[in-house]
Amino acid sequence: MIKCAIVTIGDELLYGHIDDTNATWLSQELTKNGVIVSARITVGDGISDIQGALEVAFNNAEVVILTGGLGPTQDDKTREAIALFCKRPLAREEALASMLEKHFAPRGPGVVALNEKLAWVCEGSEILPNAKGTAAGTWVDEQRGAIISLPGVPYEMKIIMEEEVLPRICLRYDVEPLFIQWIMTAGQGESSLSVALESIERNMPKGVALAYLPSLQGVRLRLTSSKELEKESKKIAQAIEACLGHLVYAKENTTLSHVVHNMLIEYRIKIAFAESCTGGNIMATLVKHPESSQYLLGGHVVYSNDWKHQEIDVSKGLLDSCGAVSEEVARSMAEGAMANAGADMTLAVTGIAGPGGGGPTKPVGTVHIALCYNEITYHKKFRLHTDRAVNIALTTTLALNMVRLALQGSLEA
Amino acid sequence: MIKCAIVTIGDELLYGHIDDTNATWLSQELTKNGVIVSARITVGDGISDIQGALEVAFNNAEVVILTGGLGPTQDDKTREAIALFCKRPLAREEALASMLEKHFAPRGPGVVALNEKLAWVCEGSEILPNAKGTAAGTWVDEQRGAIISLPGVPYEMKIIMEEEVLPRICLRYDVEPLFIQWIMTAGQGESSLSVALESIERNMPKGVALAYLPSLQGVRLRLTSSKELEKESKKIAQAIEACLGHLVYAKENTTLSHVVHNMLIEYRIKIAFAESCTGGNIMATLVKHPESSQYLLGGHVVYSNDWKHQEIDVSKGLLDSCGAVSEEVARSMAEGAMANAGADMTLAVTGIAGPGGGGPTKPVGTVHIALCYNEITYHKKFRLHTDRAVNIALTTTLALNMVRLALQGSLEA
Repeated sequence: MIKCAIVTIGDELLYGHIDDTNATWLSQELTKNGVIVSARITVGDGISDIQGALEVAFNNAEVVILTGGLGPTQDDKTREAIALFCKRPLAREEALASMLEKHFAPRGPGVVALNEKLAWVCEGSEILPNAKGTAAGTWVDEQRGAIISLPGVPYEMKIIMEEEVLPRICLRYDVEPLFIQWIMTAGQGESSLSVALESIERNMPKGVALAYLPSLQGVRLRLTSSKELEKESKKIAQAIEACLGHLVYAKENTTLSHVVHNMLIEYRIKIAFAESCTGGNIMATLVKHPESSQYLLGGHVVYSNDWKHQEIDVSKGLLDSCGAVSEEVARSMAEGAMANAGADMTLAVTGIAGPGGGGPTKPVGTVHIALCYNEITYHKKFRLHTDRAVNIALTTTLALNMVRLALQGSLEA
Repeated sequence: MIKCAIVTIGDELLYGHIDDTNATWLSQELTKNGVIVSARITVGDGISDIQGALEVAFNNAEVVILTGGLGPTQDDKTREAIALFCKRPLAREEALASMLEKHFAPRGPGVVALNEKLAWVCEGSEILPNAKGTAAGTWVDEQRGAIISLPGVPYEMKIIMEEEVLPRICLRYDVEPLFIQWIMTAGQGESSLSVALESIERNMPKGVALAYLPSLQGVRLRLTSSKELEKESKKIAQAIEACLGHLVYAKENTTLSHVVHNMLIEYRIKIAFAESCTGGNIMATLVKHPESSQYLLGGHVVYSNDWKHQEIDVSKGLLDSCGAVSEEVARSMAEGAMANAGADMTLAVTGIAGPGGGGPTKPVGTVHIALCYNEITYHKKFRLHTDRAVNIALTTTLALNMVRLALQGSLEA
């Protein structure tokens, strides 16, 4: 398999003014096509920075893809840096020159002169036409490997990559796509999953890798191997799924909210929410998906006790005796929301997001979630985190997960 | 000035499964604090990859910050790589060990054992406490410079950086901060601002730079210069603020929602919302700030027409004659929410977020926002975007901006 290094060029990247989405996209496309991305390097606009990056890149790759620094202005120096690295002169590419002349002539001789630079490439370069712009890409074979230079403008970079670079890589190198299997989980943290999967991991053959990618939206597991080990890998994936059971919500790289969204549509469920500590975040997470109007009736954000009473009929006695953050109030909120209007399912959350409001019996991170469905009210209590944003995000994930489990029939009362 | 290289670690980055937002954020923070980011390198989880990255990083920097690979699982190898690079053993840090023991004990001895690894660091490391997680950061001074290792989880990385790393860098190195003045705006796009500021920009002295950083939360303007040009820069900042007037919501790098949050507390306003197309996102945005319970009573997410009628008393006649996305319904929603309970201010939004639901007279991106305050109902109509996520985010920004303008007394009826 071939190894490729990506070099992204631009002072604006090192200042952090923009995310390096080119690097992410290139990584995805190369990986998908069976190329190993061995490293990514980001450097500024200077000639010596780019030369240094090429030096480092070839320590660990036989193909180097550079993006950026191909424009007409003074700070665009990738051409010169490649020529210096290859110890070759720059040469004027006549076909490019006449294309540029034709393109810029209507804007006057000054603009033509400014863009003259775009016709010059490292001697011996193969031109990679740019269907969406004026800065062409180039491919140079050097003794240490191939140097591919692309513009930094994302849509120009992408089309040259798709139309010119990837086909050439597939033709010229021995590339073999990877086997990748996703196992998406929600409801347990990385440590618990890792304990559960210990014996499966211990017995995995060499060449099969399991990665844990935890986030506040759950833990994604990614099993990777060569195509040759696909059969073994599939068996391991099945063993993992069997071991984790209801924790697994998908076998492709998607999100829990998207899965729940699709299930609510498929099951033709109308749902309503009563949110306290999440302040509308559960509904807002579902509403991001088009067609959420098919199942989302609406909901109440009942942040104050008065509103809990007045909008969804939680009794003042209950609020006084149990406190707003309690199993009883969560159940009453879900049931109150059910009384409101034609919902098949309602979900309510109440909790202490923090940083204030905690106490010895109800510390910050205490969250109650209740769900009404088919005349049963389910309830779960959680003890989450000390950070407010984390608590809101985790509560949203746990709430959506309860909806999923209820629809699947695997939620315990 | 000191130079820093950033090393981000993780196979998932090289596969392109996630954007490397840590690298962007670190670049921003270091630049802001007068540190030159000379290069960024991304490598996989392997020990030799990390060692190689350290080697390259020190060619061009005296401080290297690594993120990732500090978790408890098998694929987390940053500790070992640093120790090998420094030619020192790993040492058990007793204070860390007892903290971890206490933290994981309730989950059983298996989990404690799994996390034992987190107590081991390269000998001679200074521990950088992690206020939001269990994997501590470390700082090791080696002959070639400082090696700072941080977890890859963004909110853990950020808090260690802010609380532990940046203060130490400022103390230990000769950093000369730039003069930076932020001017935060909401309500107009980048192009309109740029036209308004054209003559100011044309007359700016060399060495003063104005950057436009547009996002769905508004356009941030950043004026930068050396400390020597501080006086001139301050005058330019004042001219910009005078020119933009009510569009400016802050003179520091904060968010609109934070400013509105603080104003609502300061003005002792109780607020309630009625959200349709934003599905709770406006409330969820405010609820992210601690103490939002001081002003947020709650609100209704009224996604279906039935709920608009039944919950906040929008008349069926109005819904039929004007349609749910109309000035009349927006006004009625805001007024209905006001009738509900002791609010001083209410805000309602109704719109077509897309991608479906648009038509010739009401295309996707049509949004109405109404706001009741001091017995006046204000209304604004917007024509936004074709993308659903963009429309939800922009509507949230515009709604919060209307709250700000109303409180300031500068909202026109």
